Amino acid sequence: MTKKGALIVISGFSGAGKGTIVKKLLSDYDRFSLSISMTTRAPREGEVNGREYFFVSKEEFEKTIAEDGLLEHASYLGNYYGTPKAYVESEMAKGKDVILEIEVQGALQIKEEFPETVLLFVTPPSAEVLKERLVGRGTESMDVVEKRLRRAKEEAEIMDRYDMILVNDDLEEAVKNAVALIDAAKTSPQRCKDFVARIREELGSL
Amino acid sequence: MTKKGALIVISGFSGAGKGTIVKKLLSDYDRFSLSISMTTRAPREGEVNGREYFFVSKEEFEKTIAEDGLLEHASYLGNYYGTPKAYVESEMAKGKDVILEIEVQGALQIKEEFPETVLLFVTPPSAEVLKERLVGRGTESMDVVEKRLRRAKEEAEIMDRYDMILVNDDLEEAVKNAVALIDAAKTSPQRCKDFVARIREELGSL
Repeated sequence: MTKKGALIVISGFSGAGKGTIVKKLLSDYDRFSLSISMTTRAPREGEVNGREYFFVSKEEFEKTIAEDGLLEHASYLGNYYGTPKAYVESEMAKGKDVILEIEVQGALQIKEEFPETVLLFVTPPSAEVLKERLVGRGTESMDVVEKRLRRAKEEAEIMDRYDMILVNDDLEEAVKNAVALIDAAKTSPQRCKDFVARIREELGSL
Repeated sequence: MTKKGALIVISGFSGAGKGTIVKKLLSDYDRFSLSISMTTRAPREGEVNGREYFFVSKEEFEKTIAEDGLLEHASYLGNYYGTPKAYVESEMAKGKDVILEIEVQGALQIKEEFPETVLLFVTPPSAEVLKERLVGRGTESMDVVEKRLRRAKEEAEIMDRYDMILVNDDLEEAVKNAVALIDAAKTSPQRCKDFVARIREELGSL
């Protein structure tokens, strides 16, 4: 109901398929923009600087923190991840719903600073499916798979602080549901403050 | 995600069209059940006891309160209104989403006791449209129209305590949106506790 776009944070268990959902939201719907994170981790094969992430050194990352250039930042498995502020703000001003695909610590930081942020948590239908997807991906050693599962246990303790839980069983279905959830979230009074303020004013002058 | 139905409270300005939306939700979707309120107000023309309301005397109403037979009750323009408990609970147990069309005081009472209740507030797109609908209805004196507008001003101060604001501009659209909002609300972690508990347990045992 407001012209300004919303800030949508999508998190979820590693292996829940959130990357695929985000890609499809961006390719199928004009209304979304992706915030590109900054990280100190090494690029994986096929990843391009400025597309998946801005890959920077530890020094550069810390300089950006010092300049207050990040919406949030966190460290995960020994690397920094953060969200550059300027791009997010200019896209929202254009009316775009800006998607941040970030992990839970950063998500909660953003929610605290901007309570109108929509937090979506993506999960597979069961832990068994999650494990299969992580193992089946085949790009990581068993050591990393174990680390991700331990991390998933921690994330499961936090998932109830999200606004909505998106179960990714079938991709098409999950993408449609994500859009419906985002639309619904926009009707909360906190997120349509302008409408509430206007109708109060109009009623006052009747 | 849970088998038990949800409790959906629909409120809104008198003249916002919530009654029409509720009727259409009930006729178009099997999943909804309507909770029938109890009231001490006189039936309007065409209203049937046990369909629009259970019309009872003040003494009967107060007896039901004393027996703890109401989910909530409130008084509005000098009459009592309340929600009989037993029917709501048995319908929810059958998996039905039970709709309560009640005013704001009662809605907040229920939300306090059952935080997982979904509160929808129906509003026309503007105060001008609201006034036109109230006057155009033609069933009430100008005195009652004025009372309703004053009441609307009070309700506007409370509408931001609802979960979602449903703008009723076009009926078909509003009904579709209502269903989407209810579906979305069901994905909040508070409302899919069973799923969250299960995935935590499964992850714990991996």
